[in-house]
Amino acid sequence: MSSNKITSLFKIDYPLIQAGMIWASGWKLASTVSNAGGLGLIGAGSMYPDIFHEHVQKCKKATDKPFGVNVPLLYPDVDKIMDIIVAEEVQIVFTSAGNPKTWTPFLKEHGITVVHVSPSVKFAKKAAQVGVDAVVVEGFEAGGHNGLAETTTFTLIPMVKAAIDIPIIAAGGIATGRGMLAALSLGADAVQMGTRFVASEEASSHQNFKDHVVNSQEGDTVLTLKELVPVRLMKNKFYQDIQTLYGQCPTKEELQELLGRARAKRGMFEGDLEEGELEIGQISGLVNTIQPAAEIVHEVITEFKTAQQAMSSLEF
Amino acid sequence: MSSNKITSLFKIDYPLIQAGMIWASGWKLASTVSNAGGLGLIGAGSMYPDIFHEHVQKCKKATDKPFGVNVPLLYPDVDKIMDIIVAEEVQIVFTSAGNPKTWTPFLKEHGITVVHVSPSVKFAKKAAQVGVDAVVVEGFEAGGHNGLAETTTFTLIPMVKAAIDIPIIAAGGIATGRGMLAALSLGADAVQMGTRFVASEEASSHQNFKDHVVNSQEGDTVLTLKELVPVRLMKNKFYQDIQTLYGQCPTKEELQELLGRARAKRGMFEGDLEEGELEIGQISGLVNTIQPAAEIVHEVITEFKTAQQAMSSLEF
Repeated sequence: MSSNKITSLFKIDYPLIQAGMIWASGWKLASTVSNAGGLGLIGAGSMYPDIFHEHVQKCKKATDKPFGVNVPLLYPDVDKIMDIIVAEEVQIVFTSAGNPKTWTPFLKEHGITVVHVSPSVKFAKKAAQVGVDAVVVEGFEAGGHNGLAETTTFTLIPMVKAAIDIPIIAAGGIATGRGMLAALSLGADAVQMGTRFVASEEASSHQNFKDHVVNSQEGDTVLTLKELVPVRLMKNKFYQDIQTLYGQCPTKEELQELLGRARAKRGMFEGDLEEGELEIGQISGLVNTIQPAAEIVHEVITEFKTAQQAMSSLEF
Repeated sequence: MSSNKITSLFKIDYPLIQAGMIWASGWKLASTVSNAGGLGLIGAGSMYPDIFHEHVQKCKKATDKPFGVNVPLLYPDVDKIMDIIVAEEVQIVFTSAGNPKTWTPFLKEHGITVVHVSPSVKFAKKAAQVGVDAVVVEGFEAGGHNGLAETTTFTLIPMVKAAIDIPIIAAGGIATGRGMLAALSLGADAVQMGTRFVASEEASSHQNFKDHVVNSQEGDTVLTLKELVPVRLMKNKFYQDIQTLYGQCPTKEELQELLGRARAKRGMFEGDLEEGELEIGQISGLVNTIQPAAEIVHEVITEFKTAQQAMSSLEF
């Protein structure tokens, strides 16, 4: 029996983490995943501090198991979020979208386990250097904000593994037990799944968006707006407008103006599939059912074990 | 002991195929890989018919094991290539870059095993419908020409697996035994490696190009020229010129004019690292040594078995 660095680090049953996604990952989803033996994360990125505080308190009531929060570091109220994390004694913090140097020492001083999300080898190395406990490495196929290197999960995991010694959580394109085994085969210690959990009953995303995710096919998502912050989203009317603008060789400011404000909320939380920004991963083409989150965890682990047996019987 | 569909189909020892790359895959590389227990492919895409004929004849002399050829179907002399294939009794043909409907019936009538290369679920389904024996599915991270869907290896394999019943060979981002295990975990029956074999002693690529490949890092390749035929290449002066042109909102014709003719030969065969088109996969960042091709085959299989054991001992 092998020990697993991530289950030991977080004191959880399975090396399976539910991503702290904006407009999807509230206390219901996070506590359900944690209760099922994975690690649930509350996504602070779409919450005002008081709302975030409420979600943390509700999550603590809903589970005795470890859970965590995801904090995008460029968030305007990040200092208030950090104060709530310390006051509520949250034990695990995933930081993203910003420099891990800024907050890691503060969090570590408070005894908090810190994980940073990185889309490239370069940024994973920087995170390791500032003393985070683990990294999430997120491939090109992941939904939402992403990096410029366009490194895919398949190539990113082994390159990060060759570059750093801390535990690696793989993200991007992973939605099944087979995918989990593939990520671990490539050198990851655990996986983080986003898209699969958007298609869960407990996700706070709008029903229109969930339905759209499970009905989508290969080729329905695209990484765009690389001049601003690259983001993977569903192709819809808003995306067609982006494409029309690209045809006119736009300035960065014109792209920013088209994007405007609150597009993500409009799409994922309010259910406007035409004008909203619908952030989702490429693997949505494989996700066809909305399920209870606990069922997802159990199904993934069962499939992992089946795949593990199938692979161990291969001989040539 | 499980049977493997691809080793049975091709009558080879390992489900490991060396890609039939332009300017790299001549008879020396193909016969060496086949002699080592994998499947070697001659790349017809960079050969005039008489040169191709010579390579097939030399390959037949150099190995008694099965080998194959890769034929891009948009090649101007494709009918002459096909005549040579039949005359020389080549047993295995991989077709790419074109409609598999055109030549599959002809090849099958001559008792030839046919595999088609596809960058998406849609085209993999079409290939299965016209009766090919297997498909290569090639992710976004693969070197050289690619598709527009930008589907990565990690998401493409399971989506194709869910869509078709014929054997699947995974390509793109795979260069190691761990990668091979990951691809098989996701549902592939075999893997095809290109980049790793460019970094072999037997590849006919220019030494400058091989050295450049093994010295490259993450982020050094990019998928570009999507308005023409998308191609993954190394960032160099030629790529900077493409980027400068993109800044001026070019027409398709202007892009075509910049590309010109014989850029790929100039880069990969003649070793002009500045002005040449250097087609290579994203996984080049992980490939650090030029090795004999047989050593690559044995190293991959040994690493596969080690990874297989490590994965089978995981328990949670």
